Amino acid sequence: MSATEIKVYRDLMGANAEWAAKTRALLAERGITMVNIIGSPGAGKTALLEKTITLLAGKRRVAVLEGDIETTRDAERLQVLGIPVSQLLTGGGCHLEAKMIHHALVDLPLDALDLVVVENVGNLVCPAEFDIGEAAKIAVLSVTEGEDKPLKYPLLFREARAVVVTKTDLLPYLPYNLSLCLDNIRRINPDIPVYEVSSLTGEGLVEWCNWLQHPAG
Amino acid sequence: MSATEIKVYRDLMGANAEWAAKTRALLAERGITMVNIIGSPGAGKTALLEKTITLLAGKRRVAVLEGDIETTRDAERLQVLGIPVSQLLTGGGCHLEAKMIHHALVDLPLDALDLVVVENVGNLVCPAEFDIGEAAKIAVLSVTEGEDKPLKYPLLFREARAVVVTKTDLLPYLPYNLSLCLDNIRRINPDIPVYEVSSLTGEGLVEWCNWLQHPAG
Repeated sequence: MSATEIKVYRDLMGANAEWAAKTRALLAERGITMVNIIGSPGAGKTALLEKTITLLAGKRRVAVLEGDIETTRDAERLQVLGIPVSQLLTGGGCHLEAKMIHHALVDLPLDALDLVVVENVGNLVCPAEFDIGEAAKIAVLSVTEGEDKPLKYPLLFREARAVVVTKTDLLPYLPYNLSLCLDNIRRINPDIPVYEVSSLTGEGLVEWCNWLQHPAG
Repeated sequence: MSATEIKVYRDLMGANAEWAAKTRALLAERGITMVNIIGSPGAGKTALLEKTITLLAGKRRVAVLEGDIETTRDAERLQVLGIPVSQLLTGGGCHLEAKMIHHALVDLPLDALDLVVVENVGNLVCPAEFDIGEAAKIAVLSVTEGEDKPLKYPLLFREARAVVVTKTDLLPYLPYNLSLCLDNIRRINPDIPVYEVSSLTGEGLVEWCNWLQHPAG
């Protein structure tokens, strides 16, 4: 090491922004759209993806990057659908960062893809803070979580480009006011599109998949 | 500032451990038990507390420290029950730390309390990493979150002294295998007590409240 060399350690978020920018440039160059699905554990993200991938077959060539703390269970659920899936394990970390996404992305068969869906770690808080180079963050919220969550966890609902309200098949059995939940979402983000879906019955999935084909507007 | 003074910045977790120890000593001196309730957004933590406080009335003098990112909604829900409640707002932070707990605790009427229940920020990941001086962490998991969550988010289930499985009234309407969920909990923590409850019907709440009266064993 010569006397003129200086070691530089960038701050975490600065480095994250650089990796996100690199990813965004790569995706633009390849004409690929990437979205970042964020929601609580058990909100129904993976079930939504299972149905979404099936509905997009023949329309969009999709790959999934599955974020989890431990286990490859979610990647296994999606791999049977015959698409490229990679499992990103954070080993305790509560969100995905841009560097890990970039490395996983360049290992995908990019020439054969239109859409990359990232399923973030189940967490309504931390993943909303991190840009991973996506075209759009998407908030997933199940009806069993209560109507007040957009107000209590506003960052995600402010950052998101769409909200998917899941598990609508359970509405008859819940003390739940769907229009109050929609009001709360719109208090945080007035013009955001909201899709009400059931991955069990299929309700609302076609409308959601139509949006997902052009998520950047 | 004299030449002999040196500024010391302790690492975050080190400072947290000191505040937790200070809290633990204070609670021991006053004969108060403190528990730390952790679960996803919408797992039913506040609804469980509403019922728990009612059932413990006349048996334990309870106060609640309500952790949230924003809003005082949960504290308002509990205050109508006539117990001391404080709202701890993290302002974006994804978990409660020991210092904030300590400051809120010393402001409670400690002479008139047997049990302090902390409801952590809705998050199955980060709060499990922080000791706040509690006698026991308690994991809350709703049946709508799926059977696999103990395996995917193992730290909390390893750290917890009890698990409360909530919303059992929804079991008839879910593709859900409760015994598989219990098996998964016990793969992570073989001897942990598990309470299956419905805050709507009251099922299982008496057994849970019996445990909560002696959570340190």
